[in-house]
This record gives sequence, C-alpha cells and structure tokens, in this order.
Amino acid sequence: MSDAKEFRWPVRVYWEDTDAGGIVFYANYLKFFERARTEWLRSLGVNQRELRETSGGMFVVGATGMHYHRPARLDDLLEVTAAIAEIGRASLTLRQQAWLSVDGERGPLLCEGSIRISWVDAAQMKPARIPAQILQVIAP
Amino acid sequence: MSDAKEFRWPVRVYWEDTDAGGIVFYANYLKFFERARTEWLRSLGVNQRELRETSGGMFVVGATGMHYHRPARLDDLLEVTAAIAEIGRASLTLRQQAWLSVDGERGPLLCEGSIRISWVDAAQMKPARIPAQILQVIAP
Amino acid sequence: MSDAKEFRWPVRVYWEDTDAGGIVFYANYLKFFERARTEWLRSLGVNQRELRETSGGMFVVGATGMHYHRPARLDDLLEVTAAIAEIGRASLTLRQQAWLSVDGERGPLLCEGSIRISWVDAAQMKPARIPAQILQVIAP
Amino acid sequence: MSDAKEFRWPVRVYWEDTDAGGIVFYANYLKFFERARTEWLRSLGVNQRELRETSGGMFVVGATGMHYHRPARLDDLLEVTAAIAEIGRASLTLRQQAWLSVDGERGPLLCEGSIRISWVDAAQMKPARIPAQILQVIAP
Repeated sequence: MSDAKEFRWPVRVYWEDTDAGGIVFYANYLKFFERARTEWLRSLGVNQRELRETSGGMFVVGATGMHYHRPARLDDLLEVTAAIAEIGRASLTLRQQAWLSVDGERGPLLCEGSIRISWVDAAQMKPARIPAQILQVIAP
Repeated sequence: MSDAKEFRWPVRVYWEDTDAGGIVFYANYLKFFERARTEWLRSLGVNQRELRETSGGMFVVGATGMHYHRPARLDDLLEVTAAIAEIGRASLTLRQQAWLSVDGERGPLLCEGSIRISWVDAAQMKPARIPAQILQVIAP
Repeated sequence: MSDAKEFRWPVRVYWEDTDAGGIVFYANYLKFFERARTEWLRSLGVNQRELRETSGGMFVVGATGMHYHRPARLDDLLEVTAAIAEIGRASLTLRQQAWLSVDGERGPLLCEGSIRISWVDAAQMKPARIPAQILQVIAP
Repeated sequence: MSDAKEFRWPVRVYWEDTDAGGIVFYANYLKFFERARTEWLRSLGVNQRELRETSGGMFVVGATGMHYHRPARLDDLLEVTAAIAEIGRASLTLRQQAWLSVDGERGPLLCEGSIRISWVDAAQMKPARIPAQILQVIAP
C-alpha cells in the first residue's frame, strides 16, 4: 500500500480521552481509528447512516489487533491513518496508525493496528456481501 | 422523600472512568446515575429493552442539573442513589446522589443531581404518555 | 453576550457518540461542550496541559445544567458554541449550545447548557484563584 | 489454563455501552475486560491505586487482540473471564472472554481476546520489572 492510498485524519486529545495514568486511555484509539475510517468513507462519498437506511446493512467490527508503542497526552495532536490491507466479499481489513504531530510534522508512532470490518444485515446481524456501490469506490 | 423510597446501587471506579486530572471525569457521573436508574426500574420489574420492543417507546433524558462536590478516584466504591422527585404524565424527575463508600459506611457526598426523563415514541422521538404499566409500579 | 463574543467549534457525530436509541447519548454533549471550551481557551493562547505543569492548577467542572431539545444522529455535523456568562475569582460560568448544521447553515438547537468551571490546586483539589494570565486573556 | 484458574466477573449492559447499531460498541469490551482484570487483581489483594502510590508504577496495556463473535444488547448480562496466558518479568498476557448469561447459565461466546499488560514507571512511562509483591500473588 503506497502512501498515496493512505487516508489521514487529525485527532486532538481532550480530557475525555485521558485516564488517571495521565495518558490517552488505550481503548480510545479504537474510537480515533473509527473516526478516520468514517472520514475516509465519507471522502469517497459513502455516508454510513444513509447507507443503512437505504440498504438495511452496516459495517460491524469483527476483529482488532492493536499495538501500543508510546502514550499520547492531553492537548496532543495526532495524525491517524487508514489504508486498505485486504478486501473480501463480506469484509475489509484496514491497517491504521496514530502518529504524534509535532509542529506540523509527523512525530513518533504511538499506536498501530489492524481492524477487520464486516458487512451485516442490520436487522438480523448476519454477514452479507458488501454492497457494490461501496466496493466500487473503495476498490475501483 | 423518605429514605425508605431511596434506591441504592454500588458503583466501582475503574480506569475507564477517570481522566488525566486523576479523578472521575465529571460526565461519567451521568453514566453512574443512569445505571442506578436502570437497576431501580429493573427492581420494579421494568426491563427497558423489552419495553421498547413491546411498546415502541423509551425514556430519553430531557434535562440534567449536576453539582460536583468532591472528586472520586480510581478504585473508589460509590453508593449511587435514585429517588422520585416528581411524576408527570410524560416525564419523571429523579433526585440522584453519589456518595463515597468508606469501609461499608456512607462517606462524603461526591455529586448530586436532578435528572428529568421523558417518555417518547422511539420511531419519531415525539413525547408520549408514560405507559400505565410503568406508572403503576413506580407510583402505585 | 453578543454573537461577536461567541466561540464556535464544529463537532461530527461518530458511532462512539451514539446509543441504542439511535441518537447521541446525552452525556456525550458534555464532551462536545468541553471540546469547544478547550478550543476556545486554545484560541486565546491557553494550553491546559502546559498550564497545569507550570501553575500546578487546573479547571474542574463544578456544576452543569443541561437541556436537551432534539436528538442528533450518526453523521450529523454540529456547531458547538461557548460564551462567558459570568466571571468570578475562582470560577467561570459558560453558556454553551449545540446546533445542527444543515448545508453549512445553523439549523435547529439540539442542546444547551450552563457549565461552571472552577480553578483548583491539582495536588489537593482545593479551590484557588484563577491565574492572572488566564483572566487577562478571557476578560481583557 | 484450567477452569479452576479462571476469574469470572458479571457485567451488565447499560445504555452507555451501546451504539446506534443497537448493540454494544465494540471498543467497550476492552472496558469490560479491564473491569474483570481489576477485580481479579483485587481478589488477590492487589489494589492498583495503592500500588501506584507506594511503588510509583502501574500496568499499561501494550497490545490487544480481539475477536467479536456475536453482539450483546441493552440489558444483557455478561460473564467476563480472565486467565493468565503468559507471565514475563515486565509484562503479563491474559486470555479474556465475554459470554452471554442466559437464566444463570453460560450462553454463547460474544467476544474473546488476548491482552498484554506491561509494568511501567508512571513518571517516565518506561518498562520496569513487575513488583515481586504482585508476582507472588498472581503466580505463587
């Protein structure tokens, strides 16, 4: 996956994101990663609420693998990335990273992970094929 | 409101509840209060998911007023209370408190608030009368 | 308070912000309001982490009063405001609102509230005077 | 790891845990798992706040691998487990699961994962040896 295909999204660390260790609570990187995935889809014209209302389906997270390298702190600015690692009929795997932004430059890597999202029928929560309109925009 | 009518629910403080100030993040007391309200309703035989599926309605929070007196910290055990302050046709107001538990005794008051919950039709989010089956158990 | 003094900050609604009612979980508006307060302070040159490290103090929330008017949903874009309502020696009260953004215009009011923040010594959590460097920029 | 060594902790699903998909937001299982780890340590006499104050160290999460099998919903009762999978000098790996509780019996497996926690010096966030007093109780 070349850098050209990597989506980038800025995330600021607020009080809500931290814990009593003085650092970002590790589970919250999953939220940061999801914001970047959502904005990546939006940048491709995919609006998840509309899609659910029109198609009856939605993405759910099927598996996550996260590695935490360095902590982020209150007021830090992060650059969160998303890039497709694998595309299947019913699921996608994304490779995502959170980098510290330092004076507008990419600083140290804080956290990285692999997220598998699967398409399901929202009513029954059963796996289903990813709609063609999504596949066309993410893997044209 | 006499003590006899006060519902009590224990809440433990975990890492997820704290922020970089080393204390419980203030917004999380709203979660603690809601857990106590939910368990109070459950103790009266009211299950919110079932109710939504059968009645098509649900409670939503319409207003909150919170006062924060002292901070709670990681590993603290709290006693959270709920008592009815006012009952209307479409909404209820509860008076709730969070107390620090110290060696099994009620310690200092940490936080108190007033929470108004309104019954709505879940599909349209319009106010509606609280179902009789709920009113019967909360104000028999 | 004139509009000229009102700080505005955009907030997007993600999955993390919603609950099973299909709407933004009410407690999360406190997070949205805090993001706007933090960015308002940052816009005035006040960085909370630095301030804590240099002054040993921090703002804590002392009281909140919230009114919820209409729900927000996944993918909605909100405009969150912050304006000073009252300034004391040891605390500030802000008036804050969340508006739905519709095609770049301010749509319906979703939620509004009053938030009192107090300055405390972080080590002892005791009330203290707001540092002059903060008062100078917020009430010049 | 035999069942005899498996720690079990009940977790109830509240509104705060769900998202607009009508199910538990996947990141929140990390919170459920942490509650079970914290209670497992507490059951062994290890209090994390005390330990930090006396030793200057704390556990931080270094890596997580999660698999999501079935969704949980509002009002569900879960049984969350924790069992040691591996013990090193500076880190521990736990195997954790969340099961649906159905009428007091263990129902379907909802989610499982592997969590690596590392001991760090809290001031500098540097890896350090797990204190002997902890190792003695978790691997006597």
